[in-house]
Amino acid sequence: MQNFDFYSPTYFAFGKDTENRAGELVKRFGGSKVLIHYGGGSVVRSGLLDRVKTSLEKEGIPFVELGGVQPNPRSGLVYEGIDLCRKENVDFILAVGGGSTIDSSKAIAAGTIYDGDFWDFYQGKRIEKALPVGTILTIAAAGSEGSADSVITKEDGMFKRGASGDAIRPKFSILNPALTQTLPPFQTAAGITDIMAHLYERYLTNSEEVEVTDRLLEALLLTMIHEGPRVIADPNNYEARANIMWAGMMGHNNSCGVGRSQDWLSHMIEHELSALYDCAHGAGLAVTMPAVFTYEMKHNVMRFAQAAVRIWGCQMDFAHPEVTAKAGIEAFRNYLISIGMPKNFEELGAKEEDIPKLVQVLLYGDGGSGKISGFVTLDEDSCTEIYKMMV
Amino acid sequence: MQNFDFYSPTYFAFGKDTENRAGELVKRFGGSKVLIHYGGGSVVRSGLLDRVKTSLEKEGIPFVELGGVQPNPRSGLVYEGIDLCRKENVDFILAVGGGSTIDSSKAIAAGTIYDGDFWDFYQGKRIEKALPVGTILTIAAAGSEGSADSVITKEDGMFKRGASGDAIRPKFSILNPALTQTLPPFQTAAGITDIMAHLYERYLTNSEEVEVTDRLLEALLLTMIHEGPRVIADPNNYEARANIMWAGMMGHNNSCGVGRSQDWLSHMIEHELSALYDCAHGAGLAVTMPAVFTYEMKHNVMRFAQAAVRIWGCQMDFAHPEVTAKAGIEAFRNYLISIGMPKNFEELGAKEEDIPKLVQVLLYGDGGSGKISGFVTLDEDSCTEIYKMMV
Repeated sequence: MQNFDFYSPTYFAFGKDTENRAGELVKRFGGSKVLIHYGGGSVVRSGLLDRVKTSLEKEGIPFVELGGVQPNPRSGLVYEGIDLCRKENVDFILAVGGGSTIDSSKAIAAGTIYDGDFWDFYQGKRIEKALPVGTILTIAAAGSEGSADSVITKEDGMFKRGASGDAIRPKFSILNPALTQTLPPFQTAAGITDIMAHLYERYLTNSEEVEVTDRLLEALLLTMIHEGPRVIADPNNYEARANIMWAGMMGHNNSCGVGRSQDWLSHMIEHELSALYDCAHGAGLAVTMPAVFTYEMKHNVMRFAQAAVRIWGCQMDFAHPEVTAKAGIEAFRNYLISIGMPKNFEELGAKEEDIPKLVQVLLYGDGGSGKISGFVTLDEDSCTEIYKMMV
Repeated sequence: MQNFDFYSPTYFAFGKDTENRAGELVKRFGGSKVLIHYGGGSVVRSGLLDRVKTSLEKEGIPFVELGGVQPNPRSGLVYEGIDLCRKENVDFILAVGGGSTIDSSKAIAAGTIYDGDFWDFYQGKRIEKALPVGTILTIAAAGSEGSADSVITKEDGMFKRGASGDAIRPKFSILNPALTQTLPPFQTAAGITDIMAHLYERYLTNSEEVEVTDRLLEALLLTMIHEGPRVIADPNNYEARANIMWAGMMGHNNSCGVGRSQDWLSHMIEHELSALYDCAHGAGLAVTMPAVFTYEMKHNVMRFAQAAVRIWGCQMDFAHPEVTAKAGIEAFRNYLISIGMPKNFEELGAKEEDIPKLVQVLLYGDGGSGKISGFVTLDEDSCTEIYKMMV
């Protein structure tokens, strides 16, 4: 196991009606003027936004609002949020929504008290200071409610890039599984896929002797395998939603990924798809992961065999471990199809003729070196091969 | 799943040589005058205490010392620590040792800034304020390095009782698995048993639909099953020590136990053993758990069958689930014996004739009601039956 630091100081309030505690928690964590940041109309129509405002008003906390966050959140709205926060002397950002809204909130929180361009953080500068952020989560997916990360797409060039820093970990996150019950099945399934991707990206490691984190990641994947089909069959299944929601947080706050190298090649390869086609990140991952894993399998057959046996319940073929390894990837692909995810470029809305462009942006866009590394290292040929497997 | 709040703001520095970061971390968390609290001579002889002092001196942080913490730490030394902290204007407690030292440090931290008797907290008063505590852990066992709990024994009556509060969660914990390599095998095994008890006490729940926490607890138990024999066979196995150390923290910071009722009857029943005989807590638990589980089995055969299949790899006997349930308990008992733990009263140094006294103190001592509750509710007869099973 590698040396590591781990710090997850987010306060989680989990369960039914917990959104009514927003005011209490903003106060506890020192907020006196709030920006409520959100996406489309669903949080308005469902009455959630009103409940949150009532909760703030009860504590006497003034607020301003900024809606309009899109999936794959854009830098334009971040700049707008930064201007608004400075003008209104906001000292606390409250994200009401999913990963996109939370990531946009984190960017605003860091950018408001930074002298330069906030995009610096998305080009590698570590975030050391930020306004405090709280979240009210409406979809189990990105894990941003417990993470130190944020992903933003820059309109100019459509570069999708990430930033990190303990300063943008939410001070609190309100997790009410009932808020996710109104999600359409496709979005629910895309969220499940994103959570499973966060687990697989950590599972695919070149570190040895990492039994405890292997087992924890397997536990969370087994939970998703059990709960995914239940929630697709019955969107109102609160208990299945609750198990998925906690698994999504635990899967991405990194308590189960410490002390080991991680992969993240599937995320990198997918980011170009959602940047170009504006598809759901989870849907892009559903098409990407089986292709990436099939390519990566030869690098460490035994790791994929372990995943197949421990996660997917495959029988170990001791004479031909690669058969088992492949069966595990196939089981994952079938699972993703069964919950309604796309299986190829066509279903995703991607085009084979774009592959050279995808590879170019992935490897050379925004200052890239021509190679990307994770569980394996990929160059132009191997990236092309992987995208072609998805067709 | 039940509603819950979860908050674990401890900063973990994990790995080789991390004790040299003590000064940096005390400074980061605001300490300007430190009490170094420790137990016996081993932290002195090993040179650990000197390394810690050097690290504080490098940061220019003055300190005073208080050694002498015993296993099953006593209230007398807590009072002494409180007096010392007040006299010396200490504003940070640094625990260098195992669970006993950390628990004693937490008690001093809460008591120093409390007007009344610190024992109030161990009779049910919630701890709301305390001096900040940091820890340098020397044994993986109690999980106190990441928990909001402390257990102290009051000399007058030998009552062993617990206190809780987010205020006593350590600000940081330094976890260097190499520091545990010099532990004698018996202490290592007792620590392993304690960790497994924390997992089982959470696993035995009356809550339904708790797949995610079930799976996480199983993952940590599977880790202990894998790593325990390796570290007993080779005490210098750093990697096995590392996996056990992180499992011990994750098993008790409650991230894997949220949203579900828990048991803790084995701990209650064992506490009277270690209070009366001053035996190692883990050794007491090794004798206690198989007896308690055997009694509890009839309350929910399927839960014990699930444990047997998922944790111990037993085959499910679908016609006779109780056979599988029992096989799981037997597998656990055999595991504990295999790592060198005692299997009955005699090996533990306990006496059958003391059973009436044990039951009296357990059920009526320190204001008890005559019943204790967890996974099941126990009275005089059932407690007597359980203690007798241990003979």
